[in-house]
Amino acid sequence: MNNIDYVKQTCINAKSSSKEISCLSESKKNLILKSLIDEINLKRDDIKDANSKDIESLKLTDNFNNAFVDRLLIDDLRIDSMISSISEIIAFKDPVGEITNIKEMSSGIKVGKMSMPLGVIAMIYESRPNVTIDASALCIKSGNSIILRGGSESINTNIVLSDCIKMALSQNNVNQNVVQLIDRTDRSIVNELLAQHNYIDIVIPRGGKNLIKLIDKLSSIPVLKHLDGICHVFIDRHADINKALKIAINSKTQRTGVCNAMETLIVDKNIAEEFLPLLEEQLKSHNVEIRGCSKTRNILKEVLLASDSDWSTEYLDSILSIIIVDECNDAIDHISKYGSGHTDVIVTENKKIAETFLRNVDSSSVMHNASSRFADGYEYGLGAEIGISTNKLHARGPVGIEGLTNKKFIVLGNGNIR
Amino acid sequence: MNNIDYVKQTCINAKSSSKEISCLSESKKNLILKSLIDEINLKRDDIKDANSKDIESLKLTDNFNNAFVDRLLIDDLRIDSMISSISEIIAFKDPVGEITNIKEMSSGIKVGKMSMPLGVIAMIYESRPNVTIDASALCIKSGNSIILRGGSESINTNIVLSDCIKMALSQNNVNQNVVQLIDRTDRSIVNELLAQHNYIDIVIPRGGKNLIKLIDKLSSIPVLKHLDGICHVFIDRHADINKALKIAINSKTQRTGVCNAMETLIVDKNIAEEFLPLLEEQLKSHNVEIRGCSKTRNILKEVLLASDSDWSTEYLDSILSIIIVDECNDAIDHISKYGSGHTDVIVTENKKIAETFLRNVDSSSVMHNASSRFADGYEYGLGAEIGISTNKLHARGPVGIEGLTNKKFIVLGNGNIR
Repeated sequence: MNNIDYVKQTCINAKSSSKEISCLSESKKNLILKSLIDEINLKRDDIKDANSKDIESLKLTDNFNNAFVDRLLIDDLRIDSMISSISEIIAFKDPVGEITNIKEMSSGIKVGKMSMPLGVIAMIYESRPNVTIDASALCIKSGNSIILRGGSESINTNIVLSDCIKMALSQNNVNQNVVQLIDRTDRSIVNELLAQHNYIDIVIPRGGKNLIKLIDKLSSIPVLKHLDGICHVFIDRHADINKALKIAINSKTQRTGVCNAMETLIVDKNIAEEFLPLLEEQLKSHNVEIRGCSKTRNILKEVLLASDSDWSTEYLDSILSIIIVDECNDAIDHISKYGSGHTDVIVTENKKIAETFLRNVDSSSVMHNASSRFADGYEYGLGAEIGISTNKLHARGPVGIEGLTNKKFIVLGNGNIR
Repeated sequence: MNNIDYVKQTCINAKSSSKEISCLSESKKNLILKSLIDEINLKRDDIKDANSKDIESLKLTDNFNNAFVDRLLIDDLRIDSMISSISEIIAFKDPVGEITNIKEMSSGIKVGKMSMPLGVIAMIYESRPNVTIDASALCIKSGNSIILRGGSESINTNIVLSDCIKMALSQNNVNQNVVQLIDRTDRSIVNELLAQHNYIDIVIPRGGKNLIKLIDKLSSIPVLKHLDGICHVFIDRHADINKALKIAINSKTQRTGVCNAMETLIVDKNIAEEFLPLLEEQLKSHNVEIRGCSKTRNILKEVLLASDSDWSTEYLDSILSIIIVDECNDAIDHISKYGSGHTDVIVTENKKIAETFLRNVDSSSVMHNASSRFADGYEYGLGAEIGISTNKLHARGPVGIEGLTNKKFIVLGNGNIR
């Protein structure tokens, strides 16, 4: 079969299997997930063998480096973590089928809503093979069909993992096409997939910014995505200095290469002289390079001058830009101009200023007196996270199982007519 | 200014004004809407004069027919109805800014959600000038900026109405660009608008199916839309015959040219012989033509044979297709194959069968023992309706003020770090 027919057939299979999985009971879906845990445990050696093959192949390419190997590697610890992620999803309440918010109208009808699966999800991702399991388990629990297109470098691992899923589905007499792995590695396959808006309801990319940009450009299907994580922490004049230090240091240094790390610190001029020298000292011990505005450099004499492009750069590294502003509204304006709508934080003890910031900053996560690093599906109690969205429509912020569903209207009558 | 620059400038104005309207208090937004009512009352004669001009121009074109004039006409009664629609929107609770669903996590942070405006809406519509007022009032109350592109045939009416809105905004010292009417009638303007994904967050078309199809095809921006309303009523074997007759007749005949009218009736074989002759009699008195499957024709000897294309046709007319099925699951399969995801109804006294239908039919409205004609924003208590969506993402079904908002995450801490 040529690639075009192969993708089309995969999509047709997904669409028809999506009706079956969308109607399954919670207990049946949990049985599939329990079988999946058993299968993974049974196939531990096969999974690790296939993974070794992938890593060996990687070593022969130009892409080989330690970070890449680390993303690709599956050992017993990571298998355990896949299993515990499935267990968490089993423990989650069935996200579909419940009627909520029933209200009686003056006409006599009752109107409510019911959560439903989205339908068919296409997941396009690089390296980390645990996504194969996480995404499949989330889709099974939420009643969606999924088409998986992993990176070519993890193809052997993904094939064994998807075999485990197929086995778990078939052991429970459920259509195996609920989870389909694209086992061809040609790049043209992605283009074909992204044209299938008649079959696929949403595309979720996971990987580098360039991959996501390309997918967004090519796709005829809505893409759940974020491109940048230019996260800000604003230290208001009414901040508690100790909280401000803790939050700024944690937001910048707890992990630097992640999308919810702080990239720009905004400081109220009335607290800058007290706060910035204390911060500089701690940042130095974490080897963080500072690039400041001219006012910052009046206080911190040694730092580099930030250029305009610094305010719109996601460093993903031990670099921090700092700008001093007159007051909270200027911080909000800066975030609105340069931010990426991901996560922004205010540190203040003044309730009214906090409320203004929370209300007027339109990012997918807005925080008061907490580290930006909390912007995460697990931390928000959503269970495994399928992605983070800075879109304005559908789910915003970390997307868990609920973001894989949407609500239809339910009307209950007793023979009512208009 | 050429059309490209004109559209670009309109979009820039909308984007910058959207920040202002998004932050306004409820009382301020209501003041604007109250001023709008006063302005419309003051300008009654101007509105009617401009409307007469539009109708005179229409009479000189090939498009002239009574239905078209009826859609375009603004008289005192319709002005009163615009005003009462604004009053209803004033009475609605502010849909943005409230923090809901706060939960404390084990880390100590509290996570909740806050509704926010979408940003900039582009409304593209034909003839009915009341959309100018309804859509603008909904956007003001929900904190969105709106760009209005009405039909060229109603341009004079729309200019006077949008002047009323501008006056209401300026009387309350709010940026007039919150509501902008495109006052150029060139068709190329629409193409330009649909390319502005950096400025416009959602496009809402209102009008004929061909207009909506074209907009959906050309748009680089998400389009909130429905194309067809192929609505089904399924009469289960456990239906109460009187309710079934009432609901079928009302769904088909109360208004035939609307998207929530029934187009196909599905009948359980065990009730068909009793039900169909009674229905035929009533349909005859409403002059409804019946096209039936072969089994239907065994019972109703005079009806035409339906062809396969009948099952996927939205007649919008006094025509009904009828199919007999073995049981509820076959009805669900028929709806899944031929339906348009708009509104589908089951009539039954059997609770379990009703639950199966409500759960397994994935349309934007699914009803039990009620007329399909209830699928409407007013009937659902949403206030004025900005459109109906059969999309899988974001709002589904009738879309009111809530569908013009979305939720961001709010995190409240007390110095928490990871």
